[in-house]
Amino acid sequence: MDYAGRLSRLRSALDENDLDSLLVTHLPNVHYLCGFTGSAAALLVSGRGSILFNDGRYRTQAKEEVSKARVVIARKSPLLATAEWLEARRRGSTSDSVGIEPESITTGMRDRVAAALKGKVRLRSAPPLVERARMVKDADEIQRVRQAVELGASLFQTARKKIRPGATEVAVAAAMEYEARCGGAEGMSFPTILASGTRSAIVHGRASEAQIPRRGFVVCDFGVILAGYCSDRTRTVHVGRPSLEARELYQAVLEAQMAAISAVRPGVTADAVDSAARRVLRKRKLARFFTHSTGHGLGLEIHEAPRLAAGQAQILEPGMVITIEPGAYVPGKWGVRIEDVVVVTPSGCEVLAPTDKELVIV
Amino acid sequence: MDYAGRLSRLRSALDENDLDSLLVTHLPNVHYLCGFTGSAAALLVSGRGSILFNDGRYRTQAKEEVSKARVVIARKSPLLATAEWLEARRRGSTSDSVGIEPESITTGMRDRVAAALKGKVRLRSAPPLVERARMVKDADEIQRVRQAVELGASLFQTARKKIRPGATEVAVAAAMEYEARCGGAEGMSFPTILASGTRSAIVHGRASEAQIPRRGFVVCDFGVILAGYCSDRTRTVHVGRPSLEARELYQAVLEAQMAAISAVRPGVTADAVDSAARRVLRKRKLARFFTHSTGHGLGLEIHEAPRLAAGQAQILEPGMVITIEPGAYVPGKWGVRIEDVVVVTPSGCEVLAPTDKELVIV
Repeated sequence: MDYAGRLSRLRSALDENDLDSLLVTHLPNVHYLCGFTGSAAALLVSGRGSILFNDGRYRTQAKEEVSKARVVIARKSPLLATAEWLEARRRGSTSDSVGIEPESITTGMRDRVAAALKGKVRLRSAPPLVERARMVKDADEIQRVRQAVELGASLFQTARKKIRPGATEVAVAAAMEYEARCGGAEGMSFPTILASGTRSAIVHGRASEAQIPRRGFVVCDFGVILAGYCSDRTRTVHVGRPSLEARELYQAVLEAQMAAISAVRPGVTADAVDSAARRVLRKRKLARFFTHSTGHGLGLEIHEAPRLAAGQAQILEPGMVITIEPGAYVPGKWGVRIEDVVVVTPSGCEVLAPTDKELVIV
Repeated sequence: MDYAGRLSRLRSALDENDLDSLLVTHLPNVHYLCGFTGSAAALLVSGRGSILFNDGRYRTQAKEEVSKARVVIARKSPLLATAEWLEARRRGSTSDSVGIEPESITTGMRDRVAAALKGKVRLRSAPPLVERARMVKDADEIQRVRQAVELGASLFQTARKKIRPGATEVAVAAAMEYEARCGGAEGMSFPTILASGTRSAIVHGRASEAQIPRRGFVVCDFGVILAGYCSDRTRTVHVGRPSLEARELYQAVLEAQMAAISAVRPGVTADAVDSAARRVLRKRKLARFFTHSTGHGLGLEIHEAPRLAAGQAQILEPGMVITIEPGAYVPGKWGVRIEDVVVVTPSGCEVLAPTDKELVIV
């Protein structure tokens, strides 16, 4: 991964934003910038170089993972160690301006940092500089997401085999997660959703002890983390013979998803892609059952910018990696969702691990 | 779970702290107070009642899970919906004082809430009222932790069977995690640590693609989440015949662990338990290889108060649930850790799912 380039571009962004340095506390941002994957760290990036502050648990790991930042092992919390370092090294009487990440740093942390700085360094809420950079993936990252999506996609074969009337949802999820681990995944990118029967109407229906009924939809929404990068995919199958109404619901959601995928290209807004899906469902009088947004970026995190939702003016650019996942949920009755990960290309988009999406009946 | 009692005790604590209400944003605190387990919510607790703000994805789930708080489904972020509700309903000209959780709310979130309040409601950093309450578990919670620890403990049998020279660490972890899921776990409480050979010296050595060598320690640190509650357990086994030095290292860590367990009783400080473990290792000239704290509370989260570390003055009380997990790690060579979960009782402590801890050789 091009850590040197990422740090260098961030330094340019700091200059443009009149910041002397950025105190990076959001761990996926730390990972993105220097490769460190541990659970406690603070990264200080300035024109004079980058320093990763860790605690003693990560001495060996930081040495192995990080080459483009100096590593300092602190006896206290990495963030307070950073603050003390800043306080001790401020330049003469001029007040440095240090950016903080307002969506990561808690008010409690900010207060403790400010106290350690004794008013000698000015903290300023920085714009989401690293998140903006992360929104457009480089070739190495797209390759990682591709591999994650391919591993993730293979789990659906396991799901198809295990989904049977009477099997518990969690047994199906367990088998999928085992496959994921055996395939090299560090873990799942979110709690596996396996929602059968009337539970398919629950958007976030995590796999439960419920038994799959003899007839009805099963929404399977699952993702892996492979080499740090997330996948995300939803397939909805039908157990037993689907009614005409069930087929029509599925078909409407599939058309909405295809319409949204067709709308993805550089220059369009995130809002326009969301509208493309919603328009199809509106024609079928299903718009009110589509209760979430059409998709989201993903990469080191399962939810990243951009958000594909009404009112989102973000312009799509080549290299963005997003999910397209419309759904329709009739409370107490049933639900359908279909999701793929796509990469925005210069001319449109590429669906990763594409498959036929006709309704699978098990 | 006694949600009514928890909310009522929190209301008393608000009175004692001159707060009109508390804006609960830390999700495990929301879960503790009202039972909601979704991934987005804000809970406003005041003398006039409790209101849970959610978004549309959680309409059905919130209805099922929450009975002691009113549920409001908002079209925007739950936190902003709460702020607008507060702003619209402030009492006459008197300024309400609303507590926020400083270790949960980010500076960005706080700024947006403050803007929505238009200066009409005063935000104050509240003490960790819910965390303090959660530190002492009630009988229902201890029962849940007990069941989680028992399920967690059973995974070690799988590990013993799977740990063989040439097997990858991740294959062992995958088998354990599959067992956990089949046993009803919602997931693992943290990424499974399976660190073999020289990797055993890495405190947070997540299971990797490394093959288990023919000879050496394997540190297995693993936990499940069962019905919302976490388990945490470490066993270190030796592959092949251990040297005398390896046996002595293991024995020293085991003695340190037993000494710390013996030190646990109501009225002692967290620091004293940490010292008890450290004293044993100091006598064996191993203190400098014990690079982390002796333990931590656990419950709805894998790491909760109290922290069992040097300088921690927290007095132990009956009902606290803590880990006791000293270790010794010689970088580049090897490491050993042994961990149990104990419940503080009126006369000492109870080790959950206790076992013989003599060195297991596989």
